[in-house]
Amino acid sequence: MEKFEVHILGCGSALPTTKHFASSQVVNIREKLFMIDCGEGAQLQLRKSKLKFSRLNHIFISHLHGDHCFGLMGLISTFSMLGRTADLHIHAPKELEKLLTPHLQFFCKGIGYKVLFHSVDTQQQACIYEDRSVTIYSIPMKHRIPCNGFLFVEKATPNHIRRDMIDFYQIPLHELNRIKNGSDYQLPDGTYIPNERLTTPSSPPRKYAYCSDTIYNQNIIEQIKGVDLLFHEATFAESEMARAKETFHTTASQAGKIASEAQVKQLMIGHFSARYDDENALLTEAQAIFPNTILAKENLYIKLE
Amino acid sequence: MEKFEVHILGCGSALPTTKHFASSQVVNIREKLFMIDCGEGAQLQLRKSKLKFSRLNHIFISHLHGDHCFGLMGLISTFSMLGRTADLHIHAPKELEKLLTPHLQFFCKGIGYKVLFHSVDTQQQACIYEDRSVTIYSIPMKHRIPCNGFLFVEKATPNHIRRDMIDFYQIPLHELNRIKNGSDYQLPDGTYIPNERLTTPSSPPRKYAYCSDTIYNQNIIEQIKGVDLLFHEATFAESEMARAKETFHTTASQAGKIASEAQVKQLMIGHFSARYDDENALLTEAQAIFPNTILAKENLYIKLE
Repeated sequence: MEKFEVHILGCGSALPTTKHFASSQVVNIREKLFMIDCGEGAQLQLRKSKLKFSRLNHIFISHLHGDHCFGLMGLISTFSMLGRTADLHIHAPKELEKLLTPHLQFFCKGIGYKVLFHSVDTQQQACIYEDRSVTIYSIPMKHRIPCNGFLFVEKATPNHIRRDMIDFYQIPLHELNRIKNGSDYQLPDGTYIPNERLTTPSSPPRKYAYCSDTIYNQNIIEQIKGVDLLFHEATFAESEMARAKETFHTTASQAGKIASEAQVKQLMIGHFSARYDDENALLTEAQAIFPNTILAKENLYIKLE
Repeated sequence: MEKFEVHILGCGSALPTTKHFASSQVVNIREKLFMIDCGEGAQLQLRKSKLKFSRLNHIFISHLHGDHCFGLMGLISTFSMLGRTADLHIHAPKELEKLLTPHLQFFCKGIGYKVLFHSVDTQQQACIYEDRSVTIYSIPMKHRIPCNGFLFVEKATPNHIRRDMIDFYQIPLHELNRIKNGSDYQLPDGTYIPNERLTTPSSPPRKYAYCSDTIYNQNIIEQIKGVDLLFHEATFAESEMARAKETFHTTASQAGKIASEAQVKQLMIGHFSARYDDENALLTEAQAIFPNTILAKENLYIKLE
């Protein structure tokens, strides 16, 4: 199966702790890397992950709170020192370009590659990136400032050729690509062999949704329906519900509720408040609503099956 | 003895490694904390150090390369979230204020304390800070951009009272402060007892010098003469001398030479290039010139005796 992995670089929230780095993840789809959020220390964690810096061309920033973007300058500088030449694309709320440009000019003199900013409208469900492996959509969040999550939808892969049937009908090799992509085949005697007899269907396209930071918001359910993996913030436990509402964050059981209503396959919770020494209390609360829940953790990676 | 410690938060150089954080140290003098440089991740390391955030009121930035200042925004934001009200003073080359101000306005809305910038002239040996415990001087460095190190000189502490002599002469308690500070004492019969008979001298004031980043530069020797601890950058080994010159850095044996000529008591080397998996080669080179050398290391702290 083609590679589709989610690597957690940091899953803490705004205040530093001895356990967590600030928000940052890397999605690896067929060896193309997409970074989601870039909190302070993201480049250190990326180095630790052994993922190849040169495979990362797109960074998606959910919103402009420091714990989601203060690692950008360090990463951009490091890319420059490593001799990068490929364009780096940053998809983020529009204010970021104006904020970072003077710093790029001052700290990255002689930079050998372009940093290109793409403004994301945090109010819209929109396709913000597409290539032949993946389509990425924005998911509007409800937070104290403009914010959006991201939905990664894998492109369908070609059907699998049934070698036994190809041999049986003595189909020449140069026909195989068309058959993989769905064509039927006509025998020399004129008989049509339907594609379903020559191939087995490829796995259905996998989906990953990243939803952080946000207050509990049922509006997202339709868009993330049935994803293979949902990362949802769970900053607080149920006992801190008032604080969660006030700061536009979600509790662990609310994250479980979203996962359950969206019928996702697996839920990963993260963006933990610094007040929790042991996040198992959060896990227990989420699992009470949605059993197939796991805790995010630095240096964890999940393969989407 | 009064507290005078140096805590290493990060001692790597520009490129991230799995071993090192970027440059940052904290000098603790009598429970007042002074940060030197603030590379990315400094606040994480400060949290790990268990030093009290509220005791830190002054940050000294040697120069405006990212690996010495990209941690500032995170630290300032965190202080704000922790409800800080005390002024925070940042002593740095003058461009920093203009660079950081728009970020402070955007990312730290509603901040409850003042961030005050003090421009340091990197060309001058000058007193840049003074209180009743310490005087801090700038040490001009030679680097690719304006840069200065820092010399911390402890203020002399009062002499120690000799309890036996106080009892012998039956000196009243309210006279002790004056005697500690050097006064002689007159007995009721008119006899003068010289201060030397009533006290033992306090320890001589201790000194710490931070010299990074810089090419080998003998001009600093006079200013750092005899310090108790010298931190000197040693980015490269002798085999990379050409690279050291080109990038305005120092080799380990050059750092040893500076320590030896300045007759310091101890040398600590740091700011290691990412190319060295094992810095013991650097240590060996420095020790060949100046035996009392140690390697800087994250979470290490040194008490000045």
